[in-house]
Order: sequence, then structure tokens, then C-alpha cells
Amino acid sequence: MVKFFKKTAKNLGLPPGTISESTQTTPPAVISLMDYDSKDLQEKEIKNIAGSFPFKDSPKVTWINIEGIDPKAIQKIDEHFGIHPLVSEDIVNGGQRPKLEDFGDYIFIALKMISFNEESNEIIDEQVSLILGSNFVISIQKNSGALFEPIRQRIRENKGRVRTMGADYLAYVLLDTIVDNYYLVIEKRGEEIEGLEEDVILNPCSGIGQELHHLKRDMIYLRRQIWPLREVISGMQRNESKLIKKQTTVYLRDVYDHTIQVIDTIESFRDIISGIHDSYLSGISNKMNEVMKVLTIFAAIFIPLTFMAGIYGMNFEFMPELKWRYGYFIALGLMGAVGVGMLAYFRKKKWI
Amino acid sequence: MVKFFKKTAKNLGLPPGTISESTQTTPPAVISLMDYDSKDLQEKEIKNIAGSFPFKDSPKVTWINIEGIDPKAIQKIDEHFGIHPLVSEDIVNGGQRPKLEDFGDYIFIALKMISFNEESNEIIDEQVSLILGSNFVISIQKNSGALFEPIRQRIRENKGRVRTMGADYLAYVLLDTIVDNYYLVIEKRGEEIEGLEEDVILNPCSGIGQELHHLKRDMIYLRRQIWPLREVISGMQRNESKLIKKQTTVYLRDVYDHTIQVIDTIESFRDIISGIHDSYLSGISNKMNEVMKVLTIFAAIFIPLTFMAGIYGMNFEFMPELKWRYGYFIALGLMGAVGVGMLAYFRKKKWI
Amino acid sequence: MVKFFKKTAKNLGLPPGTISESTQTTPPAVISLMDYDSKDLQEKEIKNIAGSFPFKDSPKVTWINIEGIDPKAIQKIDEHFGIHPLVSEDIVNGGQRPKLEDFGDYIFIALKMISFNEESNEIIDEQVSLILGSNFVISIQKNSGALFEPIRQRIRENKGRVRTMGADYLAYVLLDTIVDNYYLVIEKRGEEIEGLEEDVILNPCSGIGQELHHLKRDMIYLRRQIWPLREVISGMQRNESKLIKKQTTVYLRDVYDHTIQVIDTIESFRDIISGIHDSYLSGISNKMNEVMKVLTIFAAIFIPLTFMAGIYGMNFEFMPELKWRYGYFIALGLMGAVGVGMLAYFRKKKWI
Amino acid sequence: MVKFFKKTAKNLGLPPGTISESTQTTPPAVISLMDYDSKDLQEKEIKNIAGSFPFKDSPKVTWINIEGIDPKAIQKIDEHFGIHPLVSEDIVNGGQRPKLEDFGDYIFIALKMISFNEESNEIIDEQVSLILGSNFVISIQKNSGALFEPIRQRIRENKGRVRTMGADYLAYVLLDTIVDNYYLVIEKRGEEIEGLEEDVILNPCSGIGQELHHLKRDMIYLRRQIWPLREVISGMQRNESKLIKKQTTVYLRDVYDHTIQVIDTIESFRDIISGIHDSYLSGISNKMNEVMKVLTIFAAIFIPLTFMAGIYGMNFEFMPELKWRYGYFIALGLMGAVGVGMLAYFRKKKWI
Amino acid sequence: MVKFFKKTAKNLGLPPGTISESTQTTPPAVISLMDYDSKDLQEKEIKNIAGSFPFKDSPKVTWINIEGIDPKAIQKIDEHFGIHPLVSEDIVNGGQRPKLEDFGDYIFIALKMISFNEESNEIIDEQVSLILGSNFVISIQKNSGALFEPIRQRIRENKGRVRTMGADYLAYVLLDTIVDNYYLVIEKRGEEIEGLEEDVILNPCSGIGQELHHLKRDMIYLRRQIWPLREVISGMQRNESKLIKKQTTVYLRDVYDHTIQVIDTIESFRDIISGIHDSYLSGISNKMNEVMKVLTIFAAIFIPLTFMAGIYGMNFEFMPELKWRYGYFIALGLMGAVGVGMLAYFRKKKWI
Repeated sequence: MVKFFKKTAKNLGLPPGTISESTQTTPPAVISLMDYDSKDLQEKEIKNIAGSFPFKDSPKVTWINIEGIDPKAIQKIDEHFGIHPLVSEDIVNGGQRPKLEDFGDYIFIALKMISFNEESNEIIDEQVSLILGSNFVISIQKNSGALFEPIRQRIRENKGRVRTMGADYLAYVLLDTIVDNYYLVIEKRGEEIEGLEEDVILNPCSGIGQELHHLKRDMIYLRRQIWPLREVISGMQRNESKLIKKQTTVYLRDVYDHTIQVIDTIESFRDIISGIHDSYLSGISNKMNEVMKVLTIFAAIFIPLTFMAGIYGMNFEFMPELKWRYGYFIALGLMGAVGVGMLAYFRKKKWI
Repeated sequence: MVKFFKKTAKNLGLPPGTISESTQTTPPAVISLMDYDSKDLQEKEIKNIAGSFPFKDSPKVTWINIEGIDPKAIQKIDEHFGIHPLVSEDIVNGGQRPKLEDFGDYIFIALKMISFNEESNEIIDEQVSLILGSNFVISIQKNSGALFEPIRQRIRENKGRVRTMGADYLAYVLLDTIVDNYYLVIEKRGEEIEGLEEDVILNPCSGIGQELHHLKRDMIYLRRQIWPLREVISGMQRNESKLIKKQTTVYLRDVYDHTIQVIDTIESFRDIISGIHDSYLSGISNKMNEVMKVLTIFAAIFIPLTFMAGIYGMNFEFMPELKWRYGYFIALGLMGAVGVGMLAYFRKKKWI
Repeated sequence: MVKFFKKTAKNLGLPPGTISESTQTTPPAVISLMDYDSKDLQEKEIKNIAGSFPFKDSPKVTWINIEGIDPKAIQKIDEHFGIHPLVSEDIVNGGQRPKLEDFGDYIFIALKMISFNEESNEIIDEQVSLILGSNFVISIQKNSGALFEPIRQRIRENKGRVRTMGADYLAYVLLDTIVDNYYLVIEKRGEEIEGLEEDVILNPCSGIGQELHHLKRDMIYLRRQIWPLREVISGMQRNESKLIKKQTTVYLRDVYDHTIQVIDTIESFRDIISGIHDSYLSGISNKMNEVMKVLTIFAAIFIPLTFMAGIYGMNFEFMPELKWRYGYFIALGLMGAVGVGMLAYFRKKKWI
Repeated sequence: MVKFFKKTAKNLGLPPGTISESTQTTPPAVISLMDYDSKDLQEKEIKNIAGSFPFKDSPKVTWINIEGIDPKAIQKIDEHFGIHPLVSEDIVNGGQRPKLEDFGDYIFIALKMISFNEESNEIIDEQVSLILGSNFVISIQKNSGALFEPIRQRIRENKGRVRTMGADYLAYVLLDTIVDNYYLVIEKRGEEIEGLEEDVILNPCSGIGQELHHLKRDMIYLRRQIWPLREVISGMQRNESKLIKKQTTVYLRDVYDHTIQVIDTIESFRDIISGIHDSYLSGISNKMNEVMKVLTIFAAIFIPLTFMAGIYGMNFEFMPELKWRYGYFIALGLMGAVGVGMLAYFRKKKWI
Repeated sequence: MVKFFKKTAKNLGLPPGTISESTQTTPPAVISLMDYDSKDLQEKEIKNIAGSFPFKDSPKVTWINIEGIDPKAIQKIDEHFGIHPLVSEDIVNGGQRPKLEDFGDYIFIALKMISFNEESNEIIDEQVSLILGSNFVISIQKNSGALFEPIRQRIRENKGRVRTMGADYLAYVLLDTIVDNYYLVIEKRGEEIEGLEEDVILNPCSGIGQELHHLKRDMIYLRRQIWPLREVISGMQRNESKLIKKQTTVYLRDVYDHTIQVIDTIESFRDIISGIHDSYLSGISNKMNEVMKVLTIFAAIFIPLTFMAGIYGMNFEFMPELKWRYGYFIALGLMGAVGVGMLAYFRKKKWI
């Protein structure tokens, strides 16, 4: 199950901007760098973040992608690119609410990459931090860099507009890729919901309750992670910052629309799940009714009959019927008549 | 059932504005063109979209209606009419949230046409894309062009104001027709809801649960499709764009009112459906109560009687009552008395 | 039951502003006219709407009240008073959401008159259309003109301020009368709700469910009809139109307060009804508990006893107890003891 | 129970501002007057409202407190102090929604005094009307003037700031006293809610449902009466009126905070009550489960045993077991074994 | 359980700003003082608040931390630092809603410190009052000063930025520490919720209801205490006051983000708890279904069998079957067949 609350490496009482180095013994970060304009492209894997510093002032667009949270590397970026210590703290600690912070020279964006673990059927999320400067984009995430591979390919092959536009467009492309990925997760859950809808109508067994709860939980979770992104992107659109050019705004509007659509779908799913829950509850009640009816029909037919049999099982010395020639058959007949009468009564009541 | 989530032909990792040509092997689009002013009217079916280009700069109002999503045709329109590639992508991919995008020279409107499949009793939706330029309207949808036939008729017969006014008024007429069509779907569902209301009060059988769920789902769906239209139309009304003339605003206010009314009705229906669900639940509970009462009455009357019969069925050697002359009849009398007593008790409790 | 959705005489595909004449074979409208200032009063019934035209430019306030929707008459008013065709369409079609439209020279107000059919215990609504010009008010409704009689009386007898003030004050008086009438309907339903509250606590029988549903429905309905009126009146108050004088604003604030109070009451009623529903559901469950307890007590006492009697009804040849002198009485005593024990147990459990 | 809807003395069709004199045969109002500044204080009971008129233009602060709604007296105040007739109507009719109306020369405030009838455990409300002029405050209520006694005492003893500040501060003091009184009512209900919380967990008997409903109703009621006060006081704070001095604003902010806190508490109580209701419902269901289990255990143990006894009670001529020497004891043993087996089964299922 | 409503020491009828001295016989407050700039640090415990007055005008930052609510000391601060009496009242009375009040020369902030009593598993809250002047911060709380110890340590060791920045930064650090502490409480409750989620799915026993109610209550409580903090901090950020420097705003944005995150988590927890409640309810219903099925299966199998045994236990003289050689075994066979048939029936119905 997705954890709603990460065990915070929250360093109570430490000064803000402090990065707790000791606790994080992560493998060294993998840093890949692309420096391009419409004509040239330089791409390299660098081991030490310092290798990227010469590109800072290159007139081309520089994309530094860091995979793995290495506090030291981030601190160096801080110093060299003039990033505020609170930003570094947010990057290292992770678990941020999606947000946009405009520091004038650069914009810091934190958001969630959400993917799907096919095996455990669980949602996985990971913070992606973006720093957008005038001619560079730094993207930092913990694990899954594979998502950005198609973008790298597009840059290499000079497909689409990306090589001809600035760093802000690159930031847009990264955002767009992340948001597009939400669709996959949502679609997956959508299929499960549709399966559940059919189940609940045909056979509301008790296992559905558990599955419903998980889906509900996932929707609460996704909503919480994606909802604030709306503000982030509309914040970028409205931004008067010189970092985001007017012609990129159209594209941001497009990601914005996609985000809204994802949110809309999540809201619809919540409504549908709540509808399924209602159907589930009434399904259980209906089933109980069914069970009760069976019990009542059996009891109401046989209890009177047993009573009649009990009467003629009494040992009174003087019971005239017992001596009748056809007493037994008359009794059987009577019982049959009572039984048929009860059946008729229940059929009239539409229980059978 | 309406799908909430179209299997997206979402091309993850492709540059924005890319139209995936290969997957769509649609039949060629049917293109009909009307070019009119208050005096003249020219109408023709054209096979190739290029046939419409000469009309682009005609001073008359040109309405190009395209039935069928042909990526190539749309790409050509793009180039010739100067439409942004993201717009083409939205048109081809479909599944957009209703939206309005003002690009200065033209306005792009995406909305849903919602109709009703009488046979399967299902709601069908389809994206209609409108591009409103200074003197042309391009309308694109996948299938159902029949809806616009009455408008064509009005233009041909010069009925109403349409021939005397501009392209913005034509766009309004298209919007109005689409919104009016919502009423039909809503009315249909409204009748079902009323039927269900009567059912649930008279006989809350278990089939109702399923129907209720479908109605609830449809309302969630309609709400999601129509709600954003409010913003779209009010956006047009407020628009400072030179493309929408002041005198058309009155008409837009009218469509806006209709949209609000449709939304209002959907909201009311949601409330009523939720009320029906409550009645349904309490109906089930009441029925269960009924069943339980029958069971309890039978059990409470006959179980004690059977016990009494059981007593006199015991084989003790010394049981004085067995030898009494009228023992049997006294026993029967006693049993009768107990039975009548129980009945009286239940009648006092108002169970019978 | 109130219909939420009038079978619309919606003329799909017809140009806007079209009034469908043929379908409406209404009796001719009754037109009454009052022309007054603080000194003079002229009152007359006119047969043809044309009779009112001379008063259009009279410096006095002219009130034209039309009872009955006669499309032709309304079309003539259109032409003579310069009313927009969309307004006429709204008047004739009815079923409008309460709204205010300012056309500069005149203001169009559509709202609902809501009254109460004592016989069928049903809410009746009817659209009232008001057109407020600089020195005239045209009021149009289908049936119930009786509501305005007291106003006519006040004008005739020159009671209150009405004769000394302008057309805007007359419009206010009409609004005020309509809103005051809402109170009657609300009060009626309020009494029913209070009755239901007592019922549900004393005896939650199944008939309550149906009544609850009707009340809930009525509240949804009233809310939908009255809620938009808030905007209408606050729109009039804020209005910069020269048609509404500053001194009338105080009075509009008063109607506004009344409207808010009606809406508040409806919201409270909705909350209370939902509370009653909750009590009803728990009442049913409590009742079921009661029934179950009776059943369980009977079963738990007599089933073991019957078993004991069954044992001594067995026909084994060697059953020593059967031969005992007091076997029978010992058995009876044992049974009595078990029965009393069970009763004590249930009393301890507080079931009895 | 608090009535949500006062039987309105609404005079349908009467001109606005009309005070229906005949229906109100109230005892004459008790009028007390205080005229003070930081040095002098004049206090007197006056019989006729006219006695207060000379103080109207005194430079000192004049507080006229009227206990009892005497339409004639109010009409005289109207004329002498230049109050709008609609205000008098609001004062006499009562039942207003809390509101603030700024007439330039004076501000009219209507709000609810809410107190508690210890005997009937019911909430009582009463309208208090305040008219704040430049140097006078008129306060009008129907009965309970005792609430203001401590204020009078403070003025007499020149405690706190009241004597040194203006009429606006006096109005604040009156408001503050009324709002403080809300706390008492809320506290009372809060205690009941806490009692109920414990009850519902320990023993969800059916009486709780009724109490819950009453509490829910009271909260709906209080919310409706107090919620609009928020706007009233924030309206006073924001007021650009010359009647409210800047230095009083700090104090108004304080009452505002108190009002918000009362509203917050009411909202929390609503949430808690709804939580209690949920617990109550699940408590009932749990209890039913308990009852069902007892029934099922008894039935499942004894019904098979009775069947076994029934078998050996059959009268077949050839039943070998009946002739066995220990047949009876074997049968008893078997029955015991079955009984113990069933008990073990239910224990495994954790029903016992 | 957390009390929602403190028994207010509300002094009805007393002038505002009155501090009720007599009721509070608190131990004398512990006052610690720090006076620092980037170079020097003076720290001392002072017994009398007067000891802090000389530092008021020191150019360094002065932090006066008062532990214990001593009305006299607070009154002295009032006089010396020129604090408004209403502020002192708020400090002494406690129980304030989190709020920010800007008095120009100083800003008053009231908020809640929330901690966790491990023993009783209960949430404890306490008001912290902050007064931020141009170069001093006064912090007042009743008990727990230990929370601020790490900050003192940071100042002593000159760690982080605190020594180099002004009084506004110190206020931020205090706020940050308090908000960080919320995380601990939330995390604790989060773990309980996760535990409950597992319980409710595996075994919805009745104890869960109580725990759920407590969690729900805690969430209502936390929400109420923390929600208004949002406005407080965003109020500080937006503040045009000269007391808060621009460079501190970045840090305030950080606390703001944390507050939002806490609120988000509380909202998610509310949603999840409500989901758990739903699962709990359906779990109870499922369990009841289970119980009912067991009962019905037993009853439906054995009641007919007992009836059959009853028939052959009748004492009619002429019952041919009784004389058959294999009558008994045929009867047993029949009974077995019926029993097996019933079992097959229930298996087909998937009850077994």
C-alpha cells in the first residue's frame, strides 16, 4: 500500500537548509549532460558534478539530469549555480508537495513522478525536482531516469521543436512527459474499477470490500499528489518571469489541460467508487434478504408440520383419531395441504 | 456503459503536436462547404480539403464542415489557415475536455456532442472541434453530421438571422444546436429516474440497484462533459477578441443560460438519485423487517406448541395426564389458548 | 409530483427567437392596465394589446399585466416596445431559470411564482416575466393573476408609497409579493417536516420513507427555483442602470434579505430531512433488533426444552428414568429450571 | 424544540414598512436611558419614549434601552430619529436574519440573543435590534434585558474604557456581551455531546437516536443564527462609515474572533455528532450480530440433537438400536459429542 | 479525550482587556532572556520581568521566553512594551484560535503547540503567544519550554543563519519548530490508521468502532487547530509591515508549505478514516450474512429431517410403513437423501 506519510528524515531543531549527510549513504549519483542548440549537440556522462560547471554560461541550452540523491553533489550545485539552501533541502529530503518557487534568476519546481509496479499492483511515486535557469535545466530524481530517455532521443535526432527552443521549452517537455505518465496509472486503475463495477452487480462477495478500499485509498493518494500540480503549472503560465517565454505558454496551457483532465478523471473515479460502494452495501443487504427468505420459508413450512406430527406422537390413552382406519393418511393429507398452503402464501408474497 | 477513459492513442515521448498517422486508417473525410452572405449562397461538397482554400479570403462567411478525422486533411488546414499544431493534435486525438483557446487570429473550441443510442440505451459522445476565424468557421467531428442539417437548411432558406450576421453568429448557432441536443439526453434519463422513483416506493427489488448505479454513472459522466462548457461559453461572452461582435453576446448569454440549466438539472438529478438510493436502502431494510416478522411469528407460535406436544410424547410410565379421560382435548385446548395468546401479543405489538 | 423537467417545446434546429405559434392554442390573454402617478389613476381592462400602446410614452407609471401566454400579443409588444426576440422566446416558452437581463432601455426579469395546491398537497410553479422600462412595467404570467390583486388595491387606495414612486418601485412591489408567497409554501412543508420528526421518533413505519422522499424532492426543487433569485435581486441592487433609482435600492435590499432567509430555511430543512432520514434508518434497525430479540428469546428457551422432551420420547427399551416413580415430574422440573435459567440469562443481557 | 420557522405575522399584500398595530397587544415597553461622558452620568427610567428626545442632540453618549416591542413607541423613534420605516418593520416583526444596514446617519444591526431554558433543556432565541447613531445607541429587545445589567453597572462604576469612549464602543460592548452569551449555550450542548459519546460506545440503546436528532437540530439552528453574524461584524470592521472610529476596530476584531470561534465549535460539533451517529449505527449492527449469534448457536446445537432424539422416537417395529442394552446411553453419548463438537466449531469461529 | 471546549474563564460582563487575577494562582513564570547579534550573545534567567526592560531598546535581537502564565508579569510587559490590553487578555485566557494581529509597532501571533502524551495516547495542545517587535520577540507558553531548547542551542553555537538575521527570522524559527512538531503527532496517528486498516479488513470486531471514533475526533480537532494557521502564515508572508524583511519571506514560504502539507495529510486521513468506516460497516454486514447463512443451513437441513422423524413417531394404529421389515432403514435412507440434497442446494447457491 502507498504510504501517505513518509517516515520523515525531518531534522527537528536543526537550522533550515541543513542537509543531513550522514543518514544518506546513497550510491553516487549518475549525471548525464546535454548541451545543445539547433545546430550542435554535445552529450556526456560526467562523474563529478563539477564537470557540468563549465556549461553554466554556455549560450546553448544545458540539461543536467541527475539520477540519485547525492547531498554533496547538490550542495555543490547550490554553490555554483547560486541556488537557495532551502531548495537543496527540499531536493534532498523529498516528500514535497508539488510546488513552484520563483527565485528571480531561476525557478524551482517540485513534482511527483507516478508510476506503476506491475508485480505488486502498487503505485510508486518519486519526487522529481526541476531547476529552470535562463539557459539550463537541472532535473534531479532518485531512481527512474528511464522515463526521460525518449526526450533524450528526440534531442539527439532533432525531432520536433525541442532543439530550436530554449530551456523553458525543455522544462515543459519534462513536465509533459511526467504528466503523460499519470495517464497510464489512471488507466490501469480505471480498468480495475470497471471490473469491480461488473463484479458488484453480479456477485457482491466480501472480497470486493477490500479491493474497494484499496482503490479509494489510491484515489485519495493520487488526488493529493496531482491536485497541487494544477497551481504549479498555471503559476508557470501566468508567470511574469523572463525565464518563461511567451511562445512556450501555449504549450504550458496544453500540459495544464492534461493535468485538469487527470484530476477530473480522479474525481469521477472517486464518485464512481463511492457509487460502487453504495451498490455493494445494498447488494449485501439484498443477499441477506435472500438468505432470510430461505430460512423463513423453511421454518414457516416445516415448523407447523412438525407440530402436527408432534400432536399425533402424544401418548394420551384416549385419542380417537389414532384409532381411525385412515387417520394416518388423513394426517399426512392435512400436512400436505398445510405445506402447499404455505408455499402458495409465499408465492403470493413473491418470495419464491 | 460509457467509458470514462478512452484508450488514449497518447503517444508517450513523442514531440507535442505530433499526429500519429499510421494508426488511423479512417475512411476519407466528407467535406461540405457553404459560403454565404445575406444575398448569395454557394454550397458544395468537396473531396479534397484544398478545394476550400480559395474561400479563405472571401469576404463572405465560409463554413467548412468536416465529417471524419483525416489527419492529413487537418494538417493541410493547419498549414493553410495558420492553425497551431497543438490544436490539430487536439482535433485528431479527440477526448479533450471542453475548452476555449484564443489564438488571436482564431479561436479554437472543443466540446462534446452528446446523443443517445436508443437501442442499447446508452449515451454516446463525440468531440466537435470548432475553429472560428474572422470570416470562417471550420467544424470537425467524427461521425454525426446529421445534427447540423437543420442549420444548413436555415442558411439555404435564409430563415432567421443567420445569413445577415457574421461567422461568430454561425459559431453560436452550432454551439446552440449542440447544447439543445443535451436536453434530449437529459429528458430521457429524467423519465427513467421518475420511473425508478415509483418503483422504489412500490417494490424495491434488487434489479433497481443496478439501474441506479447506471444512472448515477451517467450523471457523473454528463456532469464531467458539460460542466466545463460553462467556462467555455462565459469565456466567449467576456472575450475581448475582435472575432466576437458585441451583438452576438446576447445570443451567447442565451446558450450560457441553457448550459446552466442543463447543469442545474444534472445536479438535481444527482440529488434525486441519491435520494432514491436512500429510499432503496431503507426499502430493503423494511422488507427484511417484514421477512423477520413472519419468521418470528411462526417460530414464536409453533415452537412452544411443539414443546407441549413433545411433553406428552414422553414415555414415562407414570404420567397422570395421559390417563385422564379428556387429557387429549385439554392438551389441544391449552395449545390453542397459547397460540391465540401469542397472536394477540403480536397484534398488540402491531406486527400483524 | 413536481416535474423537474418540463417537456420542452424546444424547437430543435429552429432559429433563436422563433415563437412556435401553432402548438399554443391558448385562450386569449386577459390584459389589465393601470396608469398612475401620485395624483391620477386610470385603470382599464383591454382586449387587444394594441390598446396599451398609447400609454407607452405617458409620463405616468404604466403597469400592463398580462394573464395568459398569447404569442401574438407578445410579438406585438416586442415590436412596439422594442424588446429583443430572445426575450419574447423566453416569455413564451417558460421554464426559464430565474434571471436578470439588462438591455439598457429595459430590464428583463424571469422568476418563479410558487404556490401550493391544497388538494393534491403539491407545489405548483409558474413563470412570471417582468419587463421594467423607464416608466412602465409589463408583467406576464400564465394563470394566477389573483396574487397581484392586493397590489392593485394598494394603488387604487393610494396606500403606502407605491403611487409616489416610479416604475422601479412597482417592479420591487411585484417581486416582494412573489417572494412573500414563498413563505407560505415553506411554512406548509415546515409543518409536515415537524410532524414527520415526531413520527420517526415514536414509530418509524415504512410509510415515512415515501413521505421523506417527497419532501426531499420538494426541497431540491425549491432550492433550484429560488437559489438563482439571489443573484437576480443582488444584480438589481448593484445595477448601475438608470432604470433603478437609488432610493429603491433600500427596498431591494429588503427583498434580498427575504430571499436569503427563504434559501436559508430550505437549506436548514434539507439538513433536518437528512437528519430525519438518519433517524429513520436507525429506527428501522432498532426495530429489527427488537424483532430478532423476540425470536431469539423464544427459540433459545424452547428449543432446548423440546430437545429434552424429545429425549424422553425415545423408544429405547432400557431407559431407567422412564420407570422412576417421579421421573415425569423431575423431567418437568428440570425443564422449568432450564427455562427460568434462560430467562435470567436474557434479563442479565438486558434483552428483556 | 426550537421552531425553525416563526409563524410569520407576515402581512401579505400590505405595503412595506407597515407595522401591524392591532395584533400586538403587548404590555407597554420599559425604557431605560443612560446619558454619559467620562465625567457625568445621568440615568433614568422613562415611561414615554418622548422623554428621550431631548437627549438626541446632547454631546454625551446616550443609550436608550427598550424592553418590549411597542409598535407605537418605535414609530415615534422613527419619526424623531429619522429611521427608515423598513427598519421599524424589521424591529417589530422580529425573526430577522442577523444583518447590518448602513443608512449613512445611523447603522442598523439585527442579531440574535441566544439563551438556554434550563428547565425544558431548550434553546431560546430573541431578536436584539441595535441602532447606532453618531452619539446614541438604541437597543430594543422583547424580554431579557437582564443580560445588559452588568454593562449598566460598568457604566455606573466607570470601570474599563466604556465611559471614555463613544457610542460605537458602547455598541461593541453590547455585541460582545451577546456573543459571550453564545458560549454558555454551546458549552451546555458540548457537555451533552460528550455524555452521548460515552453512551454510544458503552451501550447504544435506542433512546440515543432521539437525543442525537435533537442535538443535530440544535446545531443546524445555531449555525443558521450565528453564521451570518460573521458578515455583520466583519462589515462593521471594514466600514468606512464615520460612525465607527478607528480605535474601536481593534475591539470589533476581538468580537469577530469570538464569533469565528463559536462557529468553528458548532462546525466541530456537527462533525462529532455525525461521527457519533456513525458509531451508533455500527453499534446497532454489532448488537444485532450479537443477537444473531446467540440465536444461531442455540439453533445449531439443539436442532440436530432434537433430530437425533426424534429418530429414536420413531415407532418402527424393527429398529435394532432400541433393543440394545446400552442403546440409550450410547444415544445420549452421541448427542453429547455432537453438542460439544458444535461448541468447539463456534469457538473456533470466535463466536463464543 | 481532547476537550473541544475549554471551560472558559470567560468573565461575562467584565470590561474587555480585564485579566482575572484572583483565579490564577500559578507558580511564578520562568523567564529566560537572550540578547544577541552575529558577534555577541548575552543569556540569562531573570526572576522579575522588569529585568528584561533594559534590553528593549538594545540594537541587538532580544528574545524573551516566558514559561508560565503570570498575569502580573504580562501586565508589566503590556505597559513597558506598549502592548494592547486585548492582546494580554488573549495571552492570559488562552484557548485562542490561531491568529495574526498587526498593531503596526508589533505583531501578535497566537498559535497551538500540539504534542503527544505517550502514556494516555492523547493529544495535548497548548497556546503559544508570540509578540514580534522591531528587535525583540516575546514568546509565552504555559508549560513546555523544552521544545525551544534546540533553538537556544543553535543561537549559542551560532549554527545556521539565526545569529546573522533579525527578530523576524527568530519568529520564523519558533514557528517552524512548532509546525515541525505537528508532524510527530500526525505520524503517530497515521500509524494507528494503518493498523486499523489492516484490522478492519481481516477482522472487523466491535472494538474498532471505538478506535475509529477517537481517530475521527482527533482529526476534527487537529484540523480545527491547524487550519487557521494557514492564514496566519500567509498573512505574515503578504505582510507589508516593516517588521518582516523581504529575505525572511522565503523562509516563511517554507513553513507555509509545511503547514499546507500537514493540513493535506489531515484531510487525507479524514478521507481514509471515512473509507475505513465504510469498510467496517460492510464488514459487519458481511459477518452478519455469514452468521445468517450458518443458521439457515442448519435450520434448512434439520427442520425437514426432524419433521420426517416426527411423522414416524406418530402413534396411529394403522401406519403400514412401521411394519415394514426395512422401514426404519428406508426412513434413515430418505433422511440422508434429503440432507445431502439440501447440502447440494446450498453448495449450488455458493453458501458453503
